[in-house]
Amino acid sequence: MTKTIQSKEMNDVLTSLFSKYGFTDEKAKLLAEVHTENTLHGVNSHGINRVPFFIEQLKIGLIITDVEPEKVESFGCIERWDGKLGSGVINAIKCTNRAIEIAKENGMGLVALRNTNHWMRAGYYGWMMAKQNCIGILFTNTEPNMPAWGGKEARLGNNPLVISISRKKGHIVLDMAMTQFSFGKMNEYKLHKKSLPFDGGWDTNGDLTKKPEEILTTKSGLPIGYWKGSALSMVLDILATLLSAGKSTYQLGLEPHEHGVSQVYLCIDPSTYNDLDLQEKLTEEIIAYTKDITPTEPNGKTYYPGERSLINKIKNQKEGMKVSEEVWAKIIELINK
Amino acid sequence: MTKTIQSKEMNDVLTSLFSKYGFTDEKAKLLAEVHTENTLHGVNSHGINRVPFFIEQLKIGLIITDVEPEKVESFGCIERWDGKLGSGVINAIKCTNRAIEIAKENGMGLVALRNTNHWMRAGYYGWMMAKQNCIGILFTNTEPNMPAWGGKEARLGNNPLVISISRKKGHIVLDMAMTQFSFGKMNEYKLHKKSLPFDGGWDTNGDLTKKPEEILTTKSGLPIGYWKGSALSMVLDILATLLSAGKSTYQLGLEPHEHGVSQVYLCIDPSTYNDLDLQEKLTEEIIAYTKDITPTEPNGKTYYPGERSLINKIKNQKEGMKVSEEVWAKIIELINK
Repeated sequence: MTKTIQSKEMNDVLTSLFSKYGFTDEKAKLLAEVHTENTLHGVNSHGINRVPFFIEQLKIGLIITDVEPEKVESFGCIERWDGKLGSGVINAIKCTNRAIEIAKENGMGLVALRNTNHWMRAGYYGWMMAKQNCIGILFTNTEPNMPAWGGKEARLGNNPLVISISRKKGHIVLDMAMTQFSFGKMNEYKLHKKSLPFDGGWDTNGDLTKKPEEILTTKSGLPIGYWKGSALSMVLDILATLLSAGKSTYQLGLEPHEHGVSQVYLCIDPSTYNDLDLQEKLTEEIIAYTKDITPTEPNGKTYYPGERSLINKIKNQKEGMKVSEEVWAKIIELINK
Repeated sequence: MTKTIQSKEMNDVLTSLFSKYGFTDEKAKLLAEVHTENTLHGVNSHGINRVPFFIEQLKIGLIITDVEPEKVESFGCIERWDGKLGSGVINAIKCTNRAIEIAKENGMGLVALRNTNHWMRAGYYGWMMAKQNCIGILFTNTEPNMPAWGGKEARLGNNPLVISISRKKGHIVLDMAMTQFSFGKMNEYKLHKKSLPFDGGWDTNGDLTKKPEEILTTKSGLPIGYWKGSALSMVLDILATLLSAGKSTYQLGLEPHEHGVSQVYLCIDPSTYNDLDLQEKLTEEIIAYTKDITPTEPNGKTYYPGERSLINKIKNQKEGMKVSEEVWAKIIELINK
């Protein structure tokens, strides 16, 4: 069962909640804003639904409220930051803004962040860069949840990758994990007793399967493009780990909870070239071309990355967000108890 | 039928060939070196096999021998270069070296190149950066050869992406196109009358198929990870086009031959941080972890990206390269006529 919540209400409720659990007013406000925005974009799994779990993690000390991320080393336009196991969202906002700042001065900036926590919806920080007329390339490592191609056991993270490009008519934001389907998506299919449209992972016999319940049991998700996504996940983990001198997927897997991940925030400022009109024309041509097609499904169409996310936001701003009654009740309970 | 050629012989023969067709001695030597190295790595399709086609393109004026790539704009650590329709390999070597140079000074450097031509094996330039103890992120756009997800017609390029990381025990080099199988690979399966191991594209009815001959007819290759590779291909094209102010996949498709592509060369120098030993330890841990598995196939194993390429090179250096007799005869004929 779901209920409809307006963004102002969600924002207010979440601000109270995060204040109650030890964040300063400023941080509580930021956290509420990000969780609300993620839910507006239709990503409840990394918005409102994740809030009770986040509070659990606070309670057992996996996330620390009263720390500030700190720059530990820098050279030219690359920097290393330490997130000190603070909130992943707060750390990510700081590092995104810092990467933008370096890019505005140098054309390009990179911040590698270690000892941070889950940043919720990766795309949020891509949107932040796009709103500053910048290009963003961002990724995080995760605990092991996907086999390396050729092996049976989970050895790689699904390491979400974001590539964002500023655009007047709606920013282009690719936000994708290295598994073909997210575990959240597979849970939805399972709930509706449906099969996945394509193979999504391995069953207990080691065969590829479309059955979400099997994959949720084996925890063995299929990398996108088989061996290719396996390789891409591995290099993203190596980059995030090396550049931040932080924990790798391997090291994250040694602990019972995912804790202290490594991330990269790369920002490029193409507005330094005095031809934004040309850049816009080139981008619009590319999008128009990909939309000028015979659809594979009746009344189907193609979408640019980020297009559906923006459609969700506009709809949810107008009509309110559909939120699980159970999740909402849990949040109200957390505030009142 | 194949014959065995040693790398010295191939290098000498190709140097003569490229000299004969109008390149300076210096450029002829570079071109010969790259085509030989690519063949040593086992990538004949972008090494020796591509030479006769390259000469054809020279003859019809698609590639210009006596031009130099030129820096046209720069800001901080990002630069735009114009390849002036010269050899893609010569332009790529120049821009790779320039990106490394900027990175050594600023921690990171980016060169966006327009009006260039096919760079043969993308991974070559990733290896170049790795040999300088750097990280490389490189990609090119191509003519349309893959549908955008949801549409039937080719609207995206397979836009090869390289991510390389320097490593003492063998560099890590991911080199992957956005189609599940390269057209070269599908041709091999067709030749041996074999099916692909996974769906590789669409047949004439618009259904996904494992039959290489069908996909080679429709020219409709499957993006890695379905909608995900489609989105990734699109953003790589937008980035290469915007950052270089060059031709997009859309514009490349307006002409009968692929000609004047756009590319990005991003280099990061992690050796600026005084902890290369720690970085090495972290990388070796990740690789060891992905190799500590139960194989999915009897006697199988996992590979890190670039591992098999290096195995090929070591074997071919010792035993010589297997080269198609027909291709080799064609090259000798081109020299003698």
